[in-house]
Amino acid sequence: MQQEIAALFRRLTNGVYVVGVAHGVRRNAFTAAWITQVSFDPLLLALAIHPEHASYALLMESGAFAVSVLERGRLDLARAFGTHSGRDADKLAGVPWRAVGSGAPVLEGSVAFFDCRVVSRHPAGDHELVLGRVVDGGVLEAESQPMIYIETGDLDGSEALYPDVMGGWADGRMGR
Amino acid sequence: MQQEIAALFRRLTNGVYVVGVAHGVRRNAFTAAWITQVSFDPLLLALAIHPEHASYALLMESGAFAVSVLERGRLDLARAFGTHSGRDADKLAGVPWRAVGSGAPVLEGSVAFFDCRVVSRHPAGDHELVLGRVVDGGVLEAESQPMIYIETGDLDGSEALYPDVMGGWADGRMGR
Repeated sequence: MQQEIAALFRRLTNGVYVVGVAHGVRRNAFTAAWITQVSFDPLLLALAIHPEHASYALLMESGAFAVSVLERGRLDLARAFGTHSGRDADKLAGVPWRAVGSGAPVLEGSVAFFDCRVVSRHPAGDHELVLGRVVDGGVLEAESQPMIYIETGDLDGSEALYPDVMGGWADGRMGR
Repeated sequence: MQQEIAALFRRLTNGVYVVGVAHGVRRNAFTAAWITQVSFDPLLLALAIHPEHASYALLMESGAFAVSVLERGRLDLARAFGTHSGRDADKLAGVPWRAVGSGAPVLEGSVAFFDCRVVSRHPAGDHELVLGRVVDGGVLEAESQPMIYIETGDLDGSEALYPDVMGGWADGRMGR
């Protein structure tokens, strides 16, 4: 049933991004797919992040994050910044990047970037939902196509993270 | 500048969905793109909805919504359930649908569906972010590809909804 649930959720379409964070001299970045715009005015993005993630503390301390939109085909970058690449490794070493206004790293050659300030945080199951106001951003490679999450297959090993059951009606009602 | 901002945000990748709501004998449905998974366990989706939307009241009263994943090419459905199609028209008339557990309508022929119970709501600029626990769902058309938002061009007229400026650093800091 886990495989079926994972296959179902793959029918939701997401992009693939590298989210950069920085505080003082420390910086980090991680691959994320659960990002969407949620408001026109002000311009807000929502990002779901795991609180035990190595970048989470930096994001909270700085109150900022930058989103790099990965180009189609750049699975090497999606993999390099994945959570399985190790907490201690400097994932940014050897990859060209530059700091945006907040100090957060944006990958050179990305399709586009968004520089965001955290405006609110909300619990969301095993993740936390962070809303960020977009204060800067731009298209970096106008001819490049954004990567779509489905392209990555099970690169992130997420299939194993789905539960075996979806949870019934009665259980669902409790959450109202 | 509005056009440039709209073009930038089109580098974020979303699917296209019809969100169905029902309370008692009343039901409605609307096209939405700002949907993403936000948690594995429990399985949660986040949906950004405009509080002045005709379907908003039904969603709040029922505490439930159903997401139909539109198939690539079905711009007719994206258009028919768009916000510009009129508050008084019965958008579900003439379109095959069935009610799922919550009573909310799911479009026949969709790629997949998700039946969700509202677990929390959070203000998100000019929208509200609704988190829904997925209590049921399934793939309906295993061979069909999901529609990607960029396919729809400016079908929803969203370009005109973007602000003319992104907002600077100082302004962004206030939101911390």
